[in-house]
Formats: sequence, C-alpha cells, structure tokens
Amino acid sequence: MTKPKLQIALDQNSLAEAVAIAHKAGPIVDIVEVGTILALQAGQTAIETLSTMFPNKIIVADAKCADAGKTVAQNAKHAGADYLTVIDSATLATMLAAKAVMPNIQVELYSAWTYDLARQWIKNGIDQVIYHQSRDALLAGETWGNRDLTVVENLIDMGFRVSVTGGLTVETIPLFAGLPIETMIAGRAITGQNNPGKVAEEFQTVLTQEWG
Amino acid sequence: MTKPKLQIALDQNSLAEAVAIAHKAGPIVDIVEVGTILALQAGQTAIETLSTMFPNKIIVADAKCADAGKTVAQNAKHAGADYLTVIDSATLATMLAAKAVMPNIQVELYSAWTYDLARQWIKNGIDQVIYHQSRDALLAGETWGNRDLTVVENLIDMGFRVSVTGGLTVETIPLFAGLPIETMIAGRAITGQNNPGKVAEEFQTVLTQEWG
Repeated sequence: MTKPKLQIALDQNSLAEAVAIAHKAGPIVDIVEVGTILALQAGQTAIETLSTMFPNKIIVADAKCADAGKTVAQNAKHAGADYLTVIDSATLATMLAAKAVMPNIQVELYSAWTYDLARQWIKNGIDQVIYHQSRDALLAGETWGNRDLTVVENLIDMGFRVSVTGGLTVETIPLFAGLPIETMIAGRAITGQNNPGKVAEEFQTVLTQEWG
Repeated sequence: MTKPKLQIALDQNSLAEAVAIAHKAGPIVDIVEVGTILALQAGQTAIETLSTMFPNKIIVADAKCADAGKTVAQNAKHAGADYLTVIDSATLATMLAAKAVMPNIQVELYSAWTYDLARQWIKNGIDQVIYHQSRDALLAGETWGNRDLTVVENLIDMGFRVSVTGGLTVETIPLFAGLPIETMIAGRAITGQNNPGKVAEEFQTVLTQEWG
C-alpha cells in the first residue's frame, strides 16, 4: 500500500514563526500547507514565501474557499500554491469554478456534508476530501475513534483520495494502518515541538513502518 | 421600521485598491467589511488599515471562520475588527469559541445550514446571520426571488438579525422593503463604479425612502 504523504500545517500567527518552523521541518515533509490562520494574518505573502522556499514541494493554500472560487483559486495559484482547500458548504458552482483554475481542490469536511453531497462531488470530478476532527472539537475532548475510521473507509470506497487531520500524532497515526490514506496532515504535533525537524522524521518513520 | 445599515464589502485583490475605494465610499456607509478575498491577499494589515481609517465605523472581518474560532477571533479583534463572520458548516463549538472573544459573530449561510441547525444557533445566543446569493450562483444566472424573501422572513421570525448580500443593487434592494433587514451588504454595485461615493449615497437614499 502506498505510504501516505506527510503534510505540515503551518498555522502560526506570523509568517516569521511559520518560516522558522518550515526551515527545520519543511525539507522532511512532502507537502507544506499555508494554514487558514496564517493566511488570514500574512496574506498571499505567506504562500509566495513558502512556495519560493520549497519549489519542489506541493504547497497547499488552506483558504477553505466558500465563494468566488475562480478569484480565490487564481490568487492562490498566482502566489505559488498547487492545491486549494474549499469548504464543504460551498456550492458546487463555487467548487467547479475553483477547480477550473486549480485542478487539485480538496473539500474540507466540517459539519455540512452528507454522503449524497459527496456523491455529487465525485460525479463532478471533485475527488479529494480532508476528513478531520476540528480543533475546537479536540479542545472539547473529542478524539479519533471507530466512527471516524468507518467514515474515512466509506469515502475511500466511494473513490475519494482522503486526507486526514486534527490532532494527529506519531502515536495516533497507526490507527489508520491498513487504509490507503492520501495524506496525513500534522499541525502542532510537529510545529509545537522544540525540534520540529526531528518530529517530522519520526512521523515519516512511522508512516514507512505502517504503510511501507 | 429601522432603516437597514449599509455595508460595503471590500473584496479587491490588493489593499491599495480597497483603500482607494474606501477613501471615497467609506464615509458614507455604516459598516466597512474586509472581504474574504482581500483578507486572504493582504492579511491582517487590511483590517488594521481600514479600522484605523474609520475608527468610528463598524469593521467586519469576513473570515468565514470554519475552525480555531478563538484564535481567528482574537486575531481579527486585535487587528481592529468589531464583527467576525463564521461559516455555516463550522461546529457549534467553533462558533461559541469565536463568540466568546468577539460577541458579534455572523453566520454566513451557504449550502450547509438547515432550520434545525439555525434553531441550535439561536438557542446558543448566535443571533446574526448573513443570507446570500453566492457570487458563483449569481454568475450561473440565479437572481433574488420570492424563495429568498421567504427564507429571510422565516429567519427574522426565528429571532435572527438578518443581513443580506449577493449582487444587491439600488434597483434590487426595494425587494426587501417591509422586512426589518439588519444590514444590506453591497460589493461591486458600489466598488465597481467610477464614483463609489455617489453610488453609496444612492443606496442610502433608497434605504431611507423604503425604510425611513
């Protein structure tokens, strides 16, 4: 089974902090994400800086686009992003407008989606989703469990390339072993450490062990 | 019936353009919105600049917050925003985390919400919503109609302060006459004109005529 890619979510409040972390962990991960918090703080400069630092890595603009799909995708692409996230409650028209500019769009699954909606997406060629525990759900004490794994498996069976995120750690990612996960997205488990490069390496080691 | 407030949505690709428009139309409107496109392009500097330009106006950060409610709200507040938008598919936990920091949160109604969900919001003190035609729906040829008016009326009856947006013009706002709309949000109908100040004045004149 193909090893999931490792994505670092940079959600710092300043570009300086994000760059300092990316400087250490960026070379080790497969995908660098300009998180929503960082994007709202630093603007397109964040995408420009990270895509220039890592010209050979995939750069994700986590804009969670809800509207004006064409413009948001054009701006993200112009700044150097390869992937763009859209929110599950965006209309199909918005998703398709974004996808026409940026073929790799990823739908963020929050509390809006249904399997009916997901079937509509895949029928329209929108085949990447991000399943997650929201940060606020995690703060409220929720954790990954069998219910999540079942949903992820269902989405994979429907034909989606599924990425997962939300409080993932070196300890929790083996939960998904046996599932062809597209990407493991880690935020503070890497960025919140004294040595983010070392933790990123530990993630890659576990991914190779479990999926290699 | 109280006259709806007039909000200008600044959704330019650069802060320079947005500021030039705000310089003309800002003094005439009641609320200045840092739109999502502008926020993603220019970052928090956009909020800082516009809130410093218009210290006595309400400043809306249209972040369409989907997660990390506390952090997004703190950052927007710190930059000078008074109101924050959240997306309809955000979890209740996220909305409440944002509201704890920024009491004026406004839920953007895209394709995710249901009346059941809306009842849950209002029960939890989240009483402002923004009803709209998405930009992409408008591009696909949809327009305002009776179906929209009915939904807006239902939401008002439930106790929401309802703002409306999406392709509103001086010609279309009288459609809502008779309804206690909280705010009329206009984007390109004002910002796309040669004289945005004059068009903003025309909006205010019609609002006074219809609701005065």
